Amino acid sequence: MADFLDQIKWTSDGLIPAIAQDAKTGEVLMMAWMNRESLQLSVEEGRAIYYSRSRQALWRKGESSGHVQVLKDVHLDCDNDVVLLSVDQLGEIACHTGRRSCFYKKYIDGQWQDDAPVLKNPKEIYS
Amino acid sequence: MADFLDQIKWTSDGLIPAIAQDAKTGEVLMMAWMNRESLQLSVEEGRAIYYSRSRQALWRKGESSGHVQVLKDVHLDCDNDVVLLSVDQLGEIACHTGRRSCFYKKYIDGQWQDDAPVLKNPKEIYS
Repeated sequence: MADFLDQIKWTSDGLIPAIAQDAKTGEVLMMAWMNRESLQLSVEEGRAIYYSRSRQALWRKGESSGHVQVLKDVHLDCDNDVVLLSVDQLGEIACHTGRRSCFYKKYIDGQWQDDAPVLKNPKEIYS
Repeated sequence: MADFLDQIKWTSDGLIPAIAQDAKTGEVLMMAWMNRESLQLSVEEGRAIYYSRSRQALWRKGESSGHVQVLKDVHLDCDNDVVLLSVDQLGEIACHTGRRSCFYKKYIDGQWQDDAPVLKNPKEIYS
């Protein structure tokens, strides 16, 4: 199993950026980071498991929210330093703010303006 | 103009990851990095301008290949540390290998296997 991990150009911290894209809609949901263990576990378990840099621990996406990302496929880029995950987003919410995607701040006339609704109150998601 | 740049959580190197997504098809084309100057110039000029970490210089995507990315819109994520560019990819080729997207190595049974065709010989692109 280690071969495909050895081909990756990890950062000096042993990480790689991982972009999650909705398999059905094509929407880009979020970007987070993976280390060797999290990428290996992701393909083994068929769900997105990131590495939380702030907590310095594995982050099984959806473990508290239920918003698991079921892994459909994984692609590596030409430089071997970014992975793209195609996922089924359970609950249709990827963002901890209760929005569908984390990319909800649109650049308009020199400002970032929210352009996506909160689908569920985060207090309900994480209660 | 500086306000929207000040809201970004830049890395210690002054960079932010930038994901480019095809505005028409939703395909994720590539991920590269931007610094303050490159993001400001991107929105001013309406095209993707990255910062090349290897060359330590601005990288006006398409300047040698012609494969300019016309910027349709930009979104910032919830943590203010990743931007998503919606682009019109001129020439329909984003990757320096001559493929449409940089994410052409698919994880299959413990290996990365190419799953997208080379649309144009890189020697022709960069001649």
